[in-house]
Amino acid sequence: MTIALIGRGRLATNLLPALQQAGHDVTSVNSRTLEELPQQAGVYIISVKDSALREVIAHATKGREDQFFVHTAGSMSVDVFEGYCSRYGVFYPMQTFSKERQVSFREIPIFIEAGGSGKAAVDGKTADYTTSADATAETLGVLRVLADSVSQKVYELSTADRKYLHLAAVFACNFANHCYALAADVLAKKGLPFDVMLPLIDETARKVHGMHPQDAQTGPAVRYDENVIRMQGDLLADEPVLQDIYRLLSKSIHQKATEPHDQLRLTEDTSHRV
Amino acid sequence: MTIALIGRGRLATNLLPALQQAGHDVTSVNSRTLEELPQQAGVYIISVKDSALREVIAHATKGREDQFFVHTAGSMSVDVFEGYCSRYGVFYPMQTFSKERQVSFREIPIFIEAGGSGKAAVDGKTADYTTSADATAETLGVLRVLADSVSQKVYELSTADRKYLHLAAVFACNFANHCYALAADVLAKKGLPFDVMLPLIDETARKVHGMHPQDAQTGPAVRYDENVIRMQGDLLADEPVLQDIYRLLSKSIHQKATEPHDQLRLTEDTSHRV
Repeated sequence: MTIALIGRGRLATNLLPALQQAGHDVTSVNSRTLEELPQQAGVYIISVKDSALREVIAHATKGREDQFFVHTAGSMSVDVFEGYCSRYGVFYPMQTFSKERQVSFREIPIFIEAGGSGKAAVDGKTADYTTSADATAETLGVLRVLADSVSQKVYELSTADRKYLHLAAVFACNFANHCYALAADVLAKKGLPFDVMLPLIDETARKVHGMHPQDAQTGPAVRYDENVIRMQGDLLADEPVLQDIYRLLSKSIHQKATEPHDQLRLTEDTSHRV
Repeated sequence: MTIALIGRGRLATNLLPALQQAGHDVTSVNSRTLEELPQQAGVYIISVKDSALREVIAHATKGREDQFFVHTAGSMSVDVFEGYCSRYGVFYPMQTFSKERQVSFREIPIFIEAGGSGKAAVDGKTADYTTSADATAETLGVLRVLADSVSQKVYELSTADRKYLHLAAVFACNFANHCYALAADVLAKKGLPFDVMLPLIDETARKVHGMHPQDAQTGPAVRYDENVIRMQGDLLADEPVLQDIYRLLSKSIHQKATEPHDQLRLTEDTSHRV
């Protein structure tokens, strides 16, 4: 497939070699200049920050209204393309990317969604670009081929559900990572090395491969050990934000421990599988 | 070494085979009955929940005031033994333990602390049990041999610093795990399988082996993407506790991102090394 990859952020930096290794012919384009953006491609992938997406779409689709565009954002609707191009979709690889680290795409779940009215507005006038009314079916087919070429785990997911998936990812990744950062702060103040945390961090992640996180929980909050909870809160007396976080999360852990949890769906739900 | 291991909780359940594999002669004793607790042992390890520790110490040391006792609690002082026995210490393996999972002790950091006045009170009268004034040096030596026999990472750490270490562990393990649990909740409501989170969870843990967690951070909060933050907060409208957690952690991530962080001490600080 010929692919124009617009953007050079963390996701794009990791996606580029994955697409190349899958045998695609990829042109990487700077999202600010759009210099050397091809006039035709099998698919245009726009991988930019959410706040820049609309503007990049407006520019990149100009003169390419009949082309196929996708974005890679968890929380942006597929409809963001409406009126700009006739065929569009979402290609959302759910992973945390850093430029410093190359990750293997094979295991990364990719969530795809297809859209397309067959119409696009050019200079204020709506024009039909595809003869088939079912532009969505066509784009879904292309998206499947693209996603299957880089990952073994491809799911079809609506914009509405993808927003919840992205929210869950913020908890499981960004917030968990922030807990590591706060641990690093506590240790740094006492001159203790962060690497003593790594076996604990690794085991905490490994455990939830086979247990519901609620069943895996340990520590003073789930035991509701009031003495330790009070004493640890007091240790954070000069860090009011950390103290608030400590108390709120301890309370939430204790609350959850007293409720039954839904059976964890550890086995893959094939109903979402493409 | 002959060892009496008092307690059969998560930690004790994992420690018992590790001690046996290291070649020690271990008697496992129920902490509630103390049935068949030996009159003499190289070391008595009390591994019970914090709230039960004082009572178990009072019972177990009775008639064994000249014996060597240690506990395994992160947030309990070494002085909790004072007056009960002449030689004592702390043997704190920093890991999250579950009865369902056997973990390898070789990589688990163990934090030791020695204490001992050489004195213990028996029936209200203080008696000397050791001729040497330096009971602490003796107990530290025994603790070193014990800890080195099961782990490659042994550190000496004071009660005061161990409290901060334990607090850091609550953030890095219990709170990170709670973020997984909240992610599982969000997914369960939409019928999405939890296992799609696992590559993300694993990569988030792997990243901090080589990067400061603050540098590894991604997502809407660190970018301060107000639209996504507001929208995701709104998705949690019917879950006020989750919404509070979402907003507080997002705010804290954003605050941290604007401050420089201390250089991470990823290389081990040998000053704490035994």
